[in-house]
Amino acid sequence: MTEAKTAHAGTAAGSRDQVAINAIRFLAVDMVEAARSGHPGAPLGQAPLAYWLWTRYLRHDPRDPAWPNRDRFVLSCGHASALIYALLHLAGYDLPLEELKRFRQLGSKTPGHPEHGHTPGVETTTGPLGQGIANAVGMAMAERMLAAHFNRPGHRIIDHRTWVLASDGDLMEGVASEACSLAGHLRLGRLNVFYDANQISIDGSTDLTFTEDVAARYRAYGWHTLAVGDGNDLEQLDAAMRRAHDEVDRPTLVLVRTHIGYGSPRQDTAKVHGEPLGPEDAARTKENLGWPVEPPFYVPDEARQAFAEALARGGEASAGWRAALERYRDAHPSLAAELEARLAGRLPAGWEEKLPRFAPADGPLATRAASGKVLNAIAPALPELIGGSADLAGSNKTMIAGAGDFQPGNYGGRNLYFGVREHAMGAVMNGMALSRMLRPYGGTFLIFSDYMRPAIRLAALMGLPVIYVLTHDSIFLGEDGPTHQPISQLLALRAIPNLTLFRPADANETAEAWRQALENRDGPTALALSRQKLPVLEATADLARDGVARGAYVIAGGDGEPQALLLASGSEVALALDAHAELARQGIRTRVVSMPCWRRFDAQEASYRESVLPAGVSKRLAIEAGVGLGWHKYVGDGGAILSQETFGVSAPGADVARHFGFTAADVTRRVLELVG
Amino acid sequence: MTEAKTAHAGTAAGSRDQVAINAIRFLAVDMVEAARSGHPGAPLGQAPLAYWLWTRYLRHDPRDPAWPNRDRFVLSCGHASALIYALLHLAGYDLPLEELKRFRQLGSKTPGHPEHGHTPGVETTTGPLGQGIANAVGMAMAERMLAAHFNRPGHRIIDHRTWVLASDGDLMEGVASEACSLAGHLRLGRLNVFYDANQISIDGSTDLTFTEDVAARYRAYGWHTLAVGDGNDLEQLDAAMRRAHDEVDRPTLVLVRTHIGYGSPRQDTAKVHGEPLGPEDAARTKENLGWPVEPPFYVPDEARQAFAEALARGGEASAGWRAALERYRDAHPSLAAELEARLAGRLPAGWEEKLPRFAPADGPLATRAASGKVLNAIAPALPELIGGSADLAGSNKTMIAGAGDFQPGNYGGRNLYFGVREHAMGAVMNGMALSRMLRPYGGTFLIFSDYMRPAIRLAALMGLPVIYVLTHDSIFLGEDGPTHQPISQLLALRAIPNLTLFRPADANETAEAWRQALENRDGPTALALSRQKLPVLEATADLARDGVARGAYVIAGGDGEPQALLLASGSEVALALDAHAELARQGIRTRVVSMPCWRRFDAQEASYRESVLPAGVSKRLAIEAGVGLGWHKYVGDGGAILSQETFGVSAPGADVARHFGFTAADVTRRVLELVG
Repeated sequence: MTEAKTAHAGTAAGSRDQVAINAIRFLAVDMVEAARSGHPGAPLGQAPLAYWLWTRYLRHDPRDPAWPNRDRFVLSCGHASALIYALLHLAGYDLPLEELKRFRQLGSKTPGHPEHGHTPGVETTTGPLGQGIANAVGMAMAERMLAAHFNRPGHRIIDHRTWVLASDGDLMEGVASEACSLAGHLRLGRLNVFYDANQISIDGSTDLTFTEDVAARYRAYGWHTLAVGDGNDLEQLDAAMRRAHDEVDRPTLVLVRTHIGYGSPRQDTAKVHGEPLGPEDAARTKENLGWPVEPPFYVPDEARQAFAEALARGGEASAGWRAALERYRDAHPSLAAELEARLAGRLPAGWEEKLPRFAPADGPLATRAASGKVLNAIAPALPELIGGSADLAGSNKTMIAGAGDFQPGNYGGRNLYFGVREHAMGAVMNGMALSRMLRPYGGTFLIFSDYMRPAIRLAALMGLPVIYVLTHDSIFLGEDGPTHQPISQLLALRAIPNLTLFRPADANETAEAWRQALENRDGPTALALSRQKLPVLEATADLARDGVARGAYVIAGGDGEPQALLLASGSEVALALDAHAELARQGIRTRVVSMPCWRRFDAQEASYRESVLPAGVSKRLAIEAGVGLGWHKYVGDGGAILSQETFGVSAPGADVARHFGFTAADVTRRVLELVG
Repeated sequence: MTEAKTAHAGTAAGSRDQVAINAIRFLAVDMVEAARSGHPGAPLGQAPLAYWLWTRYLRHDPRDPAWPNRDRFVLSCGHASALIYALLHLAGYDLPLEELKRFRQLGSKTPGHPEHGHTPGVETTTGPLGQGIANAVGMAMAERMLAAHFNRPGHRIIDHRTWVLASDGDLMEGVASEACSLAGHLRLGRLNVFYDANQISIDGSTDLTFTEDVAARYRAYGWHTLAVGDGNDLEQLDAAMRRAHDEVDRPTLVLVRTHIGYGSPRQDTAKVHGEPLGPEDAARTKENLGWPVEPPFYVPDEARQAFAEALARGGEASAGWRAALERYRDAHPSLAAELEARLAGRLPAGWEEKLPRFAPADGPLATRAASGKVLNAIAPALPELIGGSADLAGSNKTMIAGAGDFQPGNYGGRNLYFGVREHAMGAVMNGMALSRMLRPYGGTFLIFSDYMRPAIRLAALMGLPVIYVLTHDSIFLGEDGPTHQPISQLLALRAIPNLTLFRPADANETAEAWRQALENRDGPTALALSRQKLPVLEATADLARDGVARGAYVIAGGDGEPQALLLASGSEVALALDAHAELARQGIRTRVVSMPCWRRFDAQEASYRESVLPAGVSKRLAIEAGVGLGWHKYVGDGGAILSQETFGVSAPGADVARHFGFTAADVTRRVLELVG
């Protein structure tokens, strides 16, 4: 404590900055006390850094949180949420003191971890560590990409920075390692990360497990690194921020030595990380830093004044940008119109006309191949559509021919190379989508969706329109074997709220799934696509458009009363149709329902659902080359499920199908058993 | 090609080593050709390194693949499976040439990616990149841990190394970054990784996305790094292997510059990575390297002889170890007995007697707290039980009091600090479990099981007895909010084949879930535990033992014919019991079924299942604070599900419960609606 007191005595001396810093600190402390829950330690240590950044460097307009060219601030250590709420309040965002008093309470604007879309000024949802910094890499990529696309000589309409506050925990997470390696490669010089090196994590000292040389690691990634020895020293902080700001050829990591729980009796211990100080220690902390113990949520005018200049500057900056946009509109009207359409979430008129149609005569086509054709057909009409693959571009068919590679020196390229970094891909796409001006897609094998699942979940939670191109979607991928064959992934993705999964049955359904993905602005869309060739089905040219939109539709046997229903998605639909034909030959009337999207089907009115799955037909067989769990919802008590309940095997796809009983003969037999 | 030809001309000169190296290369090429599928590029480049390691440094006995003190070899780049099959065959493992000829065919011992337990000598299942190297970190930790536990002066019964061959892709993956940071911290000097730096990944040159300084990054982790400029130069390789072998204070990374597709017309291109060369290019490659084009699968005697000495040495080494074990048995009989019991998978007799029982009078107790009590009660009787948390030990209650910390200088400590590295934790646990002498557990929040999902899946695929302690298992965790509240995780874990998930309803069910976890030797077990306090239920002291083992049981209302069934797990069981009591007051007879484990219940005989869920009772309500998907299987067409279909909210747990309708009154109302 001596150190804390001394440091305070040395710097407080009535300065307005110190008052503002302490106002941040004690708003945070009081929020946690009022909630009897939260994380006071980080804000106490981070307040000087955050204050200086927000008032001196961060270019934003609290009155217009959506200003497109604002700097982004990402609180990657989301547990320090009380810090950002204090900052947002003092900086002039629409976050009244009453909301701070309701920290972590039902319906407040101040949830336990910062939530984008819920609280103005929160750029991304954080809490799960490593995600925020990886989102920030995506934001910095988006900035370069949009600058390359929209800027013109004399018109730097996109020109901003991304600032991150990250903790030990963020930098331990693999997703951050992946994303920062990519950021170094891409030379994202407008990305600046402050590493809050307080040497304490939840379990205790970082000496317990995190003794690597973080700065050296970041230099190995190609980053510029700086160190601030005393995170309370505003001059040191200013010098580092200036250098970080001025370095535009490499991303910068500033290692800032801070003290968790600064000023409190628990300073520099894990005990101050994740629980309230309690009334006594809170009071002692205030006394230690020369702050009145009462009232709580005390904000001296001086603290507000300390933010006032920044607020004015921010307003001028955004007004200046709007004026610049007017000049841009005069000089480059079509680009300006495109920019505004993108911001409004409007896709270019007529883009759907580029969607290809396929016919059975085109021959069999893997849905991944169809996806590649669709992507390349629509990409020229949709400049906001950018993406790539986690080192499987050839397999995922994610390349846009002729669109160039996004690389240092060619930030206008639309093809992204994520490397074998699925998790970073997911988190980076979230960051790009947060620009509201890009529609990112990313490819990998369906099995490896597991690697990026935390990022997929956050896309769903934030409602970001990201598109996942997940190929090799079943055991039928064949020889690569059980390590690569997804068994539980379809269900695991269907289980995520607000994620829309389409598993198209053929090329036409694939085109329609892309249409739905692009029209889905309120959440992520996953496309599960086959490695193996599938026939283009007779009915889909006519039926897929409405059918895919509705999630399920009758693809065969719609006339009359069927004796049994066959339910399937993806490659199993063709299998069901083969069985349907064979059963018809045997005089058994069946109906085949293609179900590319459960979520969409569940959202249809009851009459449509009944028209597809009539309650009167209880003999139902679902066919899925993955776990059957979940299908009971559709097959009901009278139904059965032909599914894959074990891990797969390595063999040619047709052998795998025979081995596990996924042939038309197997399906036919199962239906015959059902109908008795 | 000039380079390849020259290099070959310079080194082949009739040497037995070169013949053996080419035999490896062309067995791999011919395997891929025969399968018309696979990855020829990596084996062509890696063969010299692998050959030299296997014949000069790897201490193993192909005749006894389970020799406990063998060195471990991990092919982290599992797509190079043809390489390890060629090595295993030539080294003398039970893998006949016929199996190599059936590469990637149904039922062969040579699946597309190496599978532990399927092919003798394959130490871990690889293919999903980054996992193998992270498993190897766990293996090296296990070696140090077991050495500390079992070795005695004059008796180094555990004393081996872990050797890894890893690719660009492995080192790009975040899980590898996390694990290698941990390995550096832990100073795992007996871990040696060869980085096959061929500068090509699937999408093309690593210049596209992976330009970091890998060696510098590993030095930042605290590793010793070496470089081999020419991966075909056996002298350079030998010197590096010697130095890696001799450095026992730090893990070693050897960057080996190799050429993918060495000797082939496609050398140094991505085109040679993942598809057969085709007959013409295969023939040209053989010609280039002076190998007979015919017959395929040609193995000259010289190549076999090149492995013969190593085979003999390996046999001597394992025989020597067995002799040493005899001396150890004489000197330390109880330790030797413990070692053998562990290897046989037998837990110490009587350990179950330490399992605590709880009574309602003990007061309410979070199941995570009960888990901590159980763990601490049984840990003294189970020295093989070791584990920790991904920086949430206090929240997960995973510390074993008084058992010491596993740290450099104290490898006998049983408490592990994984840091905020969930994915590494999962993969490291797999590596430790592969020792067959440790029972690792690892804790994090249930929500963050997503971060380690690829490792969980591999534990399930390999059948490894790993235990996941997943606390904060529902929206009822409260204030941390939607970023931390699991909605889809229970279902997503239930969907993984061979993973057994228990969600105990109270402290007694928690103790029984631990019993089941420890008795489950054939796959991983996940425990989903509450953050919030739960009552100790009246019935569980008597019923939980059998009930948890069977996955579901009647916990109330077992007498007579109920009007409705209430199905739940975890914290929702107490809620169901409250509603059951209220409904009884209203004259409605209900039965409450606690379902801690669906998998176990599904495996019971039909009569037991009928006794718990009588077909005659169609009014059923499932209660789950997560997605309802999956529960239709148990509630049937006449049932209903009270579930959580959206992301959660930040608020105190009780407020969250009221907000989303998870109160006894809500449950009562839903049942009344059902029974009409």
